[in-house]
Formats: sequence, structure tokens, C-alpha cells
Amino acid sequence: MFNNAIIPELSNRWLTIQTEINKIGADGLLIGGNVNLFYVADRIFSGFCYLPNKGEPLFFVKRPIHLKGNNVIYIRKPEDIPSILSERNIALPKTLLLETDELTYNEVIRLQTALSAKSILNGTTILRAIRSIKSDYEISLLRNSGQLHANCYREIPNLYRTGMTDLDFSIEIERLFRQKGSLGHFRTFGQSMEIFMGSVLAGNNAETASPYDFAMGGAGMHSSLPVGCNGTKLTNGMAVMVDMGGTFTGYITDMTRIFSIGKLTELAYKAHQVSIDIHHEIANLAKPGIATADLYNLAFTKSEKYNLKEYFMGYNQQAGFVGHGVGIEINESPVLSPRSKDILTLGYVFALEPKFVIPGTGAVGIENTFVVNATGIENLTKLNEEIVEL
Amino acid sequence: MFNNAIIPELSNRWLTIQTEINKIGADGLLIGGNVNLFYVADRIFSGFCYLPNKGEPLFFVKRPIHLKGNNVIYIRKPEDIPSILSERNIALPKTLLLETDELTYNEVIRLQTALSAKSILNGTTILRAIRSIKSDYEISLLRNSGQLHANCYREIPNLYRTGMTDLDFSIEIERLFRQKGSLGHFRTFGQSMEIFMGSVLAGNNAETASPYDFAMGGAGMHSSLPVGCNGTKLTNGMAVMVDMGGTFTGYITDMTRIFSIGKLTELAYKAHQVSIDIHHEIANLAKPGIATADLYNLAFTKSEKYNLKEYFMGYNQQAGFVGHGVGIEINESPVLSPRSKDILTLGYVFALEPKFVIPGTGAVGIENTFVVNATGIENLTKLNEEIVEL
Repeated sequence: MFNNAIIPELSNRWLTIQTEINKIGADGLLIGGNVNLFYVADRIFSGFCYLPNKGEPLFFVKRPIHLKGNNVIYIRKPEDIPSILSERNIALPKTLLLETDELTYNEVIRLQTALSAKSILNGTTILRAIRSIKSDYEISLLRNSGQLHANCYREIPNLYRTGMTDLDFSIEIERLFRQKGSLGHFRTFGQSMEIFMGSVLAGNNAETASPYDFAMGGAGMHSSLPVGCNGTKLTNGMAVMVDMGGTFTGYITDMTRIFSIGKLTELAYKAHQVSIDIHHEIANLAKPGIATADLYNLAFTKSEKYNLKEYFMGYNQQAGFVGHGVGIEINESPVLSPRSKDILTLGYVFALEPKFVIPGTGAVGIENTFVVNATGIENLTKLNEEIVEL
Repeated sequence: MFNNAIIPELSNRWLTIQTEINKIGADGLLIGGNVNLFYVADRIFSGFCYLPNKGEPLFFVKRPIHLKGNNVIYIRKPEDIPSILSERNIALPKTLLLETDELTYNEVIRLQTALSAKSILNGTTILRAIRSIKSDYEISLLRNSGQLHANCYREIPNLYRTGMTDLDFSIEIERLFRQKGSLGHFRTFGQSMEIFMGSVLAGNNAETASPYDFAMGGAGMHSSLPVGCNGTKLTNGMAVMVDMGGTFTGYITDMTRIFSIGKLTELAYKAHQVSIDIHHEIANLAKPGIATADLYNLAFTKSEKYNLKEYFMGYNQQAGFVGHGVGIEINESPVLSPRSKDILTLGYVFALEPKFVIPGTGAVGIENTFVVNATGIENLTKLNEEIVEL
């Protein structure tokens, strides 16, 4: 089931989860969602991981057929679990944690019934809190992702050809990312985010609001996926925002840079510079103990000061945040929003994306992914931040 | 909110759903999942659609901000819904249908509480049953998808270069699909299926079992997405199975063809021909009233007759089906499996994929998408079915 090298890392994760299980007074946590299975097993499998409040985790596997290991037990269905627990002298949980914000209603009911649990508690909340604090190993995967991500962005200008649409440009960028190791598949939490590999947003398509909870919108190519590029022909004076996900290592980095066709308006350059300035001010201020709401307010106040409030985080529809945690999913904890209660903590990794939509021109502003270290934050997606003329 | 042209189509869907709501004795259905919102509104939005057991549906929209229409009502949260129903003299539902196989446990509990429903019933089951029967309009979208899909496959041989890996080949195929209009994003039901745009499976990578419920496996490029191509260098004697999703129109077609590097073994050609023969026999037999289990059994018996049972639907791990419904999602009703109770019905659209994994060579067999009409089935993905040597 596991490489030996990963066992100490996973053991730490299991112990951290067990500490939280005990704090909350539960008897165990049964994980069935792919993202959290990946977190506790370093691989996707079909089945469940049961973490009792003490002792070793058990891996109940349905598929694939070839996994082996001490605590790997093949099952056909979750109803097989109780007799296996009984054989191992593990009591059935009275109070069971389940991923109630991730598994469907019927899955949760089935698992509660299968394990005869008297009550269930929200396992998603504790798993998301634990996952928000990245280990050195996870940070190394994110650092690696950030480097690959920046390398891709460096090559983007070579892909542009006169006469392209935003979609044409996006397709070449997607191919570049795949060639550099992107796995393509983009994991999101909840259904407020659906997207292909990322977004290329050009000209006044940036003004079109989207149903999703991304920072920016765009009409998209079809009503079944209304976000991102819409077939706009790239012409002189347009800003082209590239926000393509960094899905290289199982841990996602997030990064945005702006390209221009010819020159943009003064307003666009000014707004872009304010986004860069916000990044640098936040990079100076952020460290463990700082409230993420304060970081949002810094960005908002700065945009107000420069008379950019009406363009801040959208024009017709404005996003209510300037940043978000990233990890296995693109929308993890913390969130950088005015009402957030999150406090920066050692090991947090978050994307910062103060952006402006300038009517008639497009979207400007940058996004970088930062890790919170003992004394400040480190940029994982280092690359020239200016607008690059194509 | 809607184009006028789509209103009659949507009205039919609403009426069909309302008929089922009444049959089951419920007072209404509140839809919150993206796939079903697309089904009832022909577009994705953030919010809910409430279908009372009679009268017009109400669209409660959170985002985007620019939707307009008679029954489009902006809300901030589902708790806003009851007072709006009250203003319109619509009683709160005592028995409420919710998407209990799609929404999370906490979403369902929240919606039930918000609407003060005494009891909830499974809305997913009735929506999936209704969605399995495609209208003429939906079939036209699927027919269009099938043509685009086949056009892509026709060009695949042009993309091959000596020395490529399965990943290199996949990347060029993905780009071709995007250039021909693929939206990229691949909708699946449940978490038993996760994939990027599709699968390119070469040589003995086809023998590696996957955790997912696809017909075929493959190790994948990373433990966070263990399916499909794994970086295998394409060399002489290998079968290369291309199973790339047809995500062009909001309605997915499914299609597989086999390419070879040089010549394959006799066994591989024989198994491929059996897959083609199964297709033709099923095409002759299938019509409304035929049990899908009989179609599975036909395929299984045929593979047994030709001594191919051990390769049928996988080698180390064998899938328990030879086909599946397709539509907005890749895994809709019906399923073609030995214990399925599904009976072919006018308007069903399903993918048929009898496949064989030949150790040392790779996977062979074809997949086509069929629509059930009054007298038989129509192939939506017509194209040469032989193995194409690259």
C-alpha cells in the first residue's frame, strides 16, 4: 500500500487526526472521500480508511485489487466493516466522525447505519483544519509545483500568434502545462467551483459574472460551464489574464499573470501596479498570528485609496475575498475575506489574488501562492510580475 | 434566464418531473446540484430550482447577478426561500424531494431544515430515471457530439510520432479535441470515477487495475489520479487504446478506438474482432423492451465461446459491466451488467464497450454510443472500427 519513505509522514497525519478525534470526544473517523483518502494514504483507492481514537488506521479497500499491507483489508461493501473490527477487538464507534460536508446524504446515512453509530459528527471540518497546516513534505511538493508552474508561465509568451482567440491561446497553454507535467484534473471542494484546467480571460469577457466562487468570471464557451474564455478574438489594447492551475504534484499551486496585446490604458497599468504593491505589503506584514481579515482589509483599503474600488475583484459582480488556501484542493482553508476568523499559522499555504476588472480592457493583477513560515511568508510562484506585452 | 427557443423543451422536463413528484406523493423537489440545475435550466447557476408538485418552477439564484426572468428570484441563502414561497401563496412542502445521492449530508440537512420539511425522499433516483430518457433535442446534441467525436478520432493517426510515450500521444489528442470544440471538463456521478479528459492506454499498462469504476484501468501518472497513461514509451507490437470523452455539447458521447504500433498478436486481432462482432450482434438485437442484462450476457457468452473470458473487461481486475448510460454525466442510467434490472426504453442513450486486455500487448475492443429508437438502436459514433496501424 505505502512506500516505506512515506510512512513517517502518514503516521504524523494519522496521529494529528487522532488527537482531534479525542479532543472532540469521538470514537473514530471513517473516511470515504477521495481527497481525504489521498491525505491519509498518499494514494487514491476505492474504499474507506477507519481511524479509531487510538491504535492503527485500517484501510478497507474495494479496488484496485493489488494493494498489500498490514492493515489493508479487502471488503465488498461498508457493511463488511463491523465484523472485521470485531475480529480485531476494536469496538464499534458510538460517536463517529464522517465527512458530512463531502459525502452525500445517503452515503453518510449508510455508513452510520453500517457501523451502528449512535451519533455522527462533522469530520470534514477537522480534516480541513488539519489539512490547512502543511508539513515540510507537503511544502516541498508545493514548492516543486510552484517552480514548474512558474516555468510554464515563463514560456507562455512564445505560444501567442496574431489572430488567436482566447480559446486558441488557452489550448496552447493547456498543452504546455501538460507537457511540463500537469496532471490536468483540478480538484475543488463543493460545487461552487467547476472549471477545466484554469482560465484565460481577455477583454470585456472579464466583465461577465460567473456562477462560481472564483475570483474572476467570464462567460465560458457553453452554458454548461459558464466560466473563463468565451472565444474572444485577441486584439490590440486587451489585457489577457492567465490563471491556469498548477496541478503537478497532487498539491495545487495557484498563479496568475497578465499579458497584453499592444499597450493598455493608464488605468489598467495603475491597477496592475496596485495589485503588485498589495502583494509586497502583504509579504512584509504577513506572519503567524496575523488575521487573514486584516490582509483582505489591507488590499481593499489600498484599492479604495487609489480610486479602484469599483474594479476591485470584479466589475459587475465582485468576489468577497482576495485569497484562499490551496493544497489537494484549490479552495482549502484559510480564506482571506473581511469576515474571516482565520489567523495565519505556520504551515498555511494560500494564494493571494488582488485583481481588478477594467471595463473595455480586461482583468489585471497578479496571483502568487505563499507558504507561512516562522517569520513571514515565502512566495512559491516567483516570476516577473509586470504585464508582458505579447 | 432562458432563450425562448428552449422553453418548450424545459417545460416538458418540468412537467415530467412534476408527474413523478405526484406519483411518489411528495409536495415538491428542491434541486441544488449543478448537473440537475443544468437539466432544468439549460445553464449552470449558483442557487436552487424549486419544483412544487404543480405550478411553475421557481429559480432561486445566488450568482451570477445578471439573470432575468419571471420566476428568477435572487436570494442570499436557502433560508430566504420560505418567505418567498409564502408571498406567492405556495405552501411549504411537508414531504420534500432532495438530491440525496448528490448533495452532501450537511446540504441536505440544511435544506430540509430551511424548508421545515417533515420528511425527505430521494430526488436523485427520480431525476436520474427521467434524465435517462433523452428528448429529441437532447438526442440532437448527442448526435452532434458523436459526429465531432468521430471527426476527432479520424485525425488521431496524424498526431503520432515515433518515440512518443502514451502521455505525449494523449497530450496531442487532448489538444485536437479542444481545437474541435471539447469543453474539457468531464462530469461524473459519484466519486467512483475521476479522470482528466479520457484515457490513452498502451501495452502492459492496461493490465494495471485502477480504483475507479471505468471499464479499463492503467496506473496513471501519479498516485493522486491512478488511471490511464503512465508514461509508457510506445513501441512495436503495442495496442494503444484511445478512450477520450466527447464533451462538446453539454451531453457526453463515449467512444473508443484502437491504434497499433506495428502489428499485434493474433490473439489481439481476434479479441478485437469479437468486440466488433458483439457490437453488431447487439445492434441487431437491441430495441425497446430488451433487458440490458441480456446484452451483457450476449457479450460475456461470446467472449467465453472464443476463449477470451480471462481477458474480458480487464485481466487482473475485471469490470462488471459492458456498457453504461451517458448524458450530462458519463455514468448515467442504464447499466449493462449481469444483475441490472434495466430494460431498453425509447430515448435511452448508452455506450457499449466490450473490451479485452491482452497481457503484453494492451487493450483492444471498441466503444460506440447508441441511442434507442422505436425499432432498434442508432450508432452516434460511426467510424471505421478496425485497428489502425500508426
